[in-house]
Amino acid sequence: MSNKKVVLAYSGGLDTSYCLKYLKNEQGYEVHTVLINTGGFDDAELQAIEDRAYELGSAQHANLTILDKYYDKAIKYLIYGNVLKNNTYPLSVSAERVFQAIEAIKYAKSVGATAIAHGSTGAGNDQIRFDLIFQTIAPEIEIITPIRDLKLSRQEEVDYLAKNGVHYSWEKAQYSINKGLWGTSVGGKETLTSSQPLPSEAYPSQLQKEGEEKVTLEFLKGELVAVNGVADKPSNNIVVLEKLASAYAIGRDIHVGDTIIGIKGRVGFEAAAPLIIIKAHHLLEKHTLGKWQQYWKEQLGNWYGMLFHEGQFLDPVMRNIETFLEDTQKTVNGTVTVSLKPYHFSLDGIESKNDLMNTGFGQYGEMNNAWTSDDAKGFIKILGNAQNIFSSVNNETYE
Amino acid sequence: MSNKKVVLAYSGGLDTSYCLKYLKNEQGYEVHTVLINTGGFDDAELQAIEDRAYELGSAQHANLTILDKYYDKAIKYLIYGNVLKNNTYPLSVSAERVFQAIEAIKYAKSVGATAIAHGSTGAGNDQIRFDLIFQTIAPEIEIITPIRDLKLSRQEEVDYLAKNGVHYSWEKAQYSINKGLWGTSVGGKETLTSSQPLPSEAYPSQLQKEGEEKVTLEFLKGELVAVNGVADKPSNNIVVLEKLASAYAIGRDIHVGDTIIGIKGRVGFEAAAPLIIIKAHHLLEKHTLGKWQQYWKEQLGNWYGMLFHEGQFLDPVMRNIETFLEDTQKTVNGTVTVSLKPYHFSLDGIESKNDLMNTGFGQYGEMNNAWTSDDAKGFIKILGNAQNIFSSVNNETYE
Amino acid sequence: MSNKKVVLAYSGGLDTSYCLKYLKNEQGYEVHTVLINTGGFDDAELQAIEDRAYELGSAQHANLTILDKYYDKAIKYLIYGNVLKNNTYPLSVSAERVFQAIEAIKYAKSVGATAIAHGSTGAGNDQIRFDLIFQTIAPEIEIITPIRDLKLSRQEEVDYLAKNGVHYSWEKAQYSINKGLWGTSVGGKETLTSSQPLPSEAYPSQLQKEGEEKVTLEFLKGELVAVNGVADKPSNNIVVLEKLASAYAIGRDIHVGDTIIGIKGRVGFEAAAPLIIIKAHHLLEKHTLGKWQQYWKEQLGNWYGMLFHEGQFLDPVMRNIETFLEDTQKTVNGTVTVSLKPYHFSLDGIESKNDLMNTGFGQYGEMNNAWTSDDAKGFIKILGNAQNIFSSVNNETYE
Amino acid sequence: MSNKKVVLAYSGGLDTSYCLKYLKNEQGYEVHTVLINTGGFDDAELQAIEDRAYELGSAQHANLTILDKYYDKAIKYLIYGNVLKNNTYPLSVSAERVFQAIEAIKYAKSVGATAIAHGSTGAGNDQIRFDLIFQTIAPEIEIITPIRDLKLSRQEEVDYLAKNGVHYSWEKAQYSINKGLWGTSVGGKETLTSSQPLPSEAYPSQLQKEGEEKVTLEFLKGELVAVNGVADKPSNNIVVLEKLASAYAIGRDIHVGDTIIGIKGRVGFEAAAPLIIIKAHHLLEKHTLGKWQQYWKEQLGNWYGMLFHEGQFLDPVMRNIETFLEDTQKTVNGTVTVSLKPYHFSLDGIESKNDLMNTGFGQYGEMNNAWTSDDAKGFIKILGNAQNIFSSVNNETYE
Repeated sequence: MSNKKVVLAYSGGLDTSYCLKYLKNEQGYEVHTVLINTGGFDDAELQAIEDRAYELGSAQHANLTILDKYYDKAIKYLIYGNVLKNNTYPLSVSAERVFQAIEAIKYAKSVGATAIAHGSTGAGNDQIRFDLIFQTIAPEIEIITPIRDLKLSRQEEVDYLAKNGVHYSWEKAQYSINKGLWGTSVGGKETLTSSQPLPSEAYPSQLQKEGEEKVTLEFLKGELVAVNGVADKPSNNIVVLEKLASAYAIGRDIHVGDTIIGIKGRVGFEAAAPLIIIKAHHLLEKHTLGKWQQYWKEQLGNWYGMLFHEGQFLDPVMRNIETFLEDTQKTVNGTVTVSLKPYHFSLDGIESKNDLMNTGFGQYGEMNNAWTSDDAKGFIKILGNAQNIFSSVNNETYE
Repeated sequence: MSNKKVVLAYSGGLDTSYCLKYLKNEQGYEVHTVLINTGGFDDAELQAIEDRAYELGSAQHANLTILDKYYDKAIKYLIYGNVLKNNTYPLSVSAERVFQAIEAIKYAKSVGATAIAHGSTGAGNDQIRFDLIFQTIAPEIEIITPIRDLKLSRQEEVDYLAKNGVHYSWEKAQYSINKGLWGTSVGGKETLTSSQPLPSEAYPSQLQKEGEEKVTLEFLKGELVAVNGVADKPSNNIVVLEKLASAYAIGRDIHVGDTIIGIKGRVGFEAAAPLIIIKAHHLLEKHTLGKWQQYWKEQLGNWYGMLFHEGQFLDPVMRNIETFLEDTQKTVNGTVTVSLKPYHFSLDGIESKNDLMNTGFGQYGEMNNAWTSDDAKGFIKILGNAQNIFSSVNNETYE
Repeated sequence: MSNKKVVLAYSGGLDTSYCLKYLKNEQGYEVHTVLINTGGFDDAELQAIEDRAYELGSAQHANLTILDKYYDKAIKYLIYGNVLKNNTYPLSVSAERVFQAIEAIKYAKSVGATAIAHGSTGAGNDQIRFDLIFQTIAPEIEIITPIRDLKLSRQEEVDYLAKNGVHYSWEKAQYSINKGLWGTSVGGKETLTSSQPLPSEAYPSQLQKEGEEKVTLEFLKGELVAVNGVADKPSNNIVVLEKLASAYAIGRDIHVGDTIIGIKGRVGFEAAAPLIIIKAHHLLEKHTLGKWQQYWKEQLGNWYGMLFHEGQFLDPVMRNIETFLEDTQKTVNGTVTVSLKPYHFSLDGIESKNDLMNTGFGQYGEMNNAWTSDDAKGFIKILGNAQNIFSSVNNETYE
Repeated sequence: MSNKKVVLAYSGGLDTSYCLKYLKNEQGYEVHTVLINTGGFDDAELQAIEDRAYELGSAQHANLTILDKYYDKAIKYLIYGNVLKNNTYPLSVSAERVFQAIEAIKYAKSVGATAIAHGSTGAGNDQIRFDLIFQTIAPEIEIITPIRDLKLSRQEEVDYLAKNGVHYSWEKAQYSINKGLWGTSVGGKETLTSSQPLPSEAYPSQLQKEGEEKVTLEFLKGELVAVNGVADKPSNNIVVLEKLASAYAIGRDIHVGDTIIGIKGRVGFEAAAPLIIIKAHHLLEKHTLGKWQQYWKEQLGNWYGMLFHEGQFLDPVMRNIETFLEDTQKTVNGTVTVSLKPYHFSLDGIESKNDLMNTGFGQYGEMNNAWTSDDAKGFIKILGNAQNIFSSVNNETYE
């Protein structure tokens, strides 16, 4: 019996199936497979992956569904921070990959593995997310990456598996899809160019409804606690909203960004619920937070999103930022009404006991009782002092 | 003959018509009216305003159209900086008000006026934009603000004008509209609430086309130099694009923000061309600028937008930021293809000789030739050093 | 008996003595005087101020010493944030003025006053700190400011007091000194110029010792918990250190800054303990915090200092920043050794169980075991990808 | 005859002497040595290094002195940006290493070398600065790093050289000194600890003068154009000031920072002129720049310093930041008076035609004519609106 035990982050696809066979047959490992489900798989799919893992020789397979932990430790803060990478992308894949890495390495420790393996190539962000997390949480566990090391072609992998008696149909889908609670990524031949959009049919959700539908989202301290008046835990509410909104094919876009390895990357995604929640949450904040709270939330939220995206989730500043973001959410309470329409949505408005508008202090543009014309003149006179002095001292001419 | 000469920023509306009559009759001023056109008025409208000004007693009326100056000194930088206040609003009104103030005070100096007047109330942002600019450029010229000082009701203004023989129909429009090159604002009873959206019919442009239409936007050093292959100066290109896109009723939204006087304000707007140009320009930058260029452009662009919005356009840091933004645009060259659709648009992609994607250095997620698996491992190992050390020294457990 | 009750923030000086007499005699107020002691007064001084208040007609005088509250709610965060305004000034006066305002208005509420008065002029920062705090905490209480309103000369105040039977010697000190726990400000004729330094004798502490003296400062979670091995509460430790260091005349400097009203201001100060503590704390952080923790602490700490200095202490973002700063301090533990010398000091070094240096991961510049030459080469190769691509695509020549 | 030509960045020390012999004898290279002098070597030293290079077998040695280029392309911006890494370190070594790299690789291109070599280890920052610059400017030239690759001990290098007939005295200096125009670094056994200061005698300059000496520094658009009234080019002025100030043993400190490879590093330095110039320049800016100019200069200056320190000098954002910094310097004109004293200095004050203090707009804390008491009250009332509304809506109690 083998005393070399490896945990393989397994998805059932060609790359990790190759890894499983290779680690067992060529490297003599006892391979323990684990799939960390962040919302992309239903029960039938999980069962199918487990069955295949055992067929391919897994000594032990585990399906770990971590929706609540993933929400509590990641998505919650991405909402607090209104995180959209490059103003576009809700970190659909990046966030889940980091949490898959965390759970996989913890699982490896729990089963006493001496090595951990993943199926990423050497050209993408995922390898970095996996390795950074692995080496920080368990520096004593060896990291094995057959796909990165061997640089095999797809055909070579298929051939190897066939030679070892595995004859699944490995035909490549036209679009590679990665689904999770916080959105679905879509890659294809178009996303390898700079100029081509994804065709409508590449996106997982197709238009099923016409017209317009109102949805209300209720937030309590920044968390989505109810959809259309039905209270549930936030991770469930995300699923409910996704179902409602995807009928309108909402949430499609393409992310273009700087990868961790310094090249540019482009990937399509569909993320109706994340985009609607973030935009609704952000609107509620515009009504309930002060100007500088919003300013610094934006700075720290964007930074948080950048480090998270780049796999630096365990950097200590991330915990400090989470504490900051959470502290800002005390007054982010209220209900946002959203209009769902074919392929897009709009925000109707908010109701909140913490709304800073219409408070009796004066209404924008309307005459007011809280201050006089002279107060306003005094305010402006002194507000202008610095620039008047600069102008005068330096003889500015404003040509 | 009066030797007290005042220049009045005149729009032809009730407030400034009242000011004109009041300054002449009650204050004994020789009133010179001026309208600074930033794209909101056609020739017929300008003529009508001029006619009314003379009817009401203007000693001299001037219509000054400043589209190119407005573009060169303001809009250009708002595009370079991808400026959307609170991630939403392209500063449609704020930018034009600042430039109206600059031209009005210069005009006042040129005609030897001892005073300048505007019709803003004491509850809004416009008074601040006007006063800050006026007092910096010409501290020696007195600022007169009858509407702010007298706090008259609409009816009182109408009555005063009637008493003085002015009997126009002053019925209040259901929605107050302010139109300019960089967008149109829409205020109404709904925008005084936090919860109500504007009805579709409140927006100036209504849906005229169905289906989808492609538009190409060509940028040279960050400036929009051609639309659909037709080269023209940028200010004209904006008008052309606005016409194309408004047929799809694109560009509607509501801005919620912190006013300069500290209360929250809410205003609707329609700005098809500004939103499309900014999003297209931003996408082109994602392909052609480095990561930290984008990071600092966002910081400085947002700050620029904030100070601009708040009337601090003459703060010296604004010129420094403009210099920075311009310097970043050297490589922002290429063509962006946009899909116009009913009520929304999407970006297809870009073509650019400065595109940093697909360069032979390796393709995102695909196997690469520019570095090896060992290079990637070394990179990640050392990239993780800091967080590994922190984790080890502080015995982090990652429960 | 008067039923108009005013609380006057009273210091015993000419301005507030004038206010006391004026409010009682001319305005018919029942004047309650209060002095908020933030460390600038000893028992004898407090008694003398109380005596004078009663002589001048105070209905009730209170001396409130708030050292611990001041430390817990303000100084602690100024240390966490290494706050030196414009890289120089530890907010000696600004911080204490804000806390005097807070305690004064709370006191006014507690005694049922309908008004509160202070003796600031209309040209400085203090009026803003007082008014902003007063009007936020108790908008229902009227603010009265005789000195600002009446614009009296010093002689007019003396004359008025004399006429009312008050014949103290009011001779003006050559230098106006404001002392508190977090430093002493010094104003004089030189600080009204841009070019003149304060003469050595203007500073409160004069050189008493030569040579060099070592002091150890022990920090626990960012707080100064012991000096030279003697544990005490932080506010006491500050006093102990100030005594040690002022014998070397350490901590003199001049602050030049932008006032809240937009003009430039210049003020001398002496703050040995604050400067030493902040520099020692900062050094300890360089050893115990990650790179990005330090980066964001600097951003937020500086912003905190700016808003604090400008009297915006009650802005909600301030509480969020305090939470952030506190969260970063978990690992800021250890002892810093400082060398005190005539007029300056230097930091010897630190000892800390959380020190991230010398950890076995490799020593700076020395050969290492944690990574290989190939790891380093791979790291640098990939680290350079982005700039290499930019260079190549744009044909940079580096002339 | 060899057709493999390598350029070796040569310093005359043990490591690069080993490299020279090794590359020639073991690798068969024609070795061209080059020393890039950034101010650390006088003519005699340069001659000695050249002689040794030829003795050891250099095919061609070049001494390139680049003081003016180094000032124009680097130091100038470090002054504009008041760059002190971690608030302490003027980048003495980092800046010069980057420029040595740039000149070395250009030299390699100019002589048609196919390879370039440096003597850095795999544990420090210098390897990264060299490699990043080399691979960006000339990706076609191979980088060779014998010391990093072979991990030889000092003794092994000495033995190898001896075996090859080189019998210099290689005794290790107690402190390793690196001198350049912008400061001198000092490493020794103490800087490998966290707790020990460098002994006074480790610093290159020892106290030669007592008492106090005034020096005037004249700046024009941010550049140091004269010292004590004597105009010269800035690079010469730095040398003049260094000579004056080092007689007082000014400018000693220890830098603790995060290295590029993620470990903490500690190094002593002496940099009298850089520290005095930066502090004087910064003071002049406090008088001549607006508040937000200073704010953003600090952000961008610090970032510039960080990327520069980390070898990312060729990142395109660096050129944009330089443009920004230069644009802010238009009004940074005037004279700063500095007092030199044993081991420290202080700033007396400034004189400038662009001074924004004492302008007639009002003097800090003194009564003013530019605005009234009512203006001030109006200003403060409206300035407080936002925080008053927040307080009122959220029922803040300020316990």
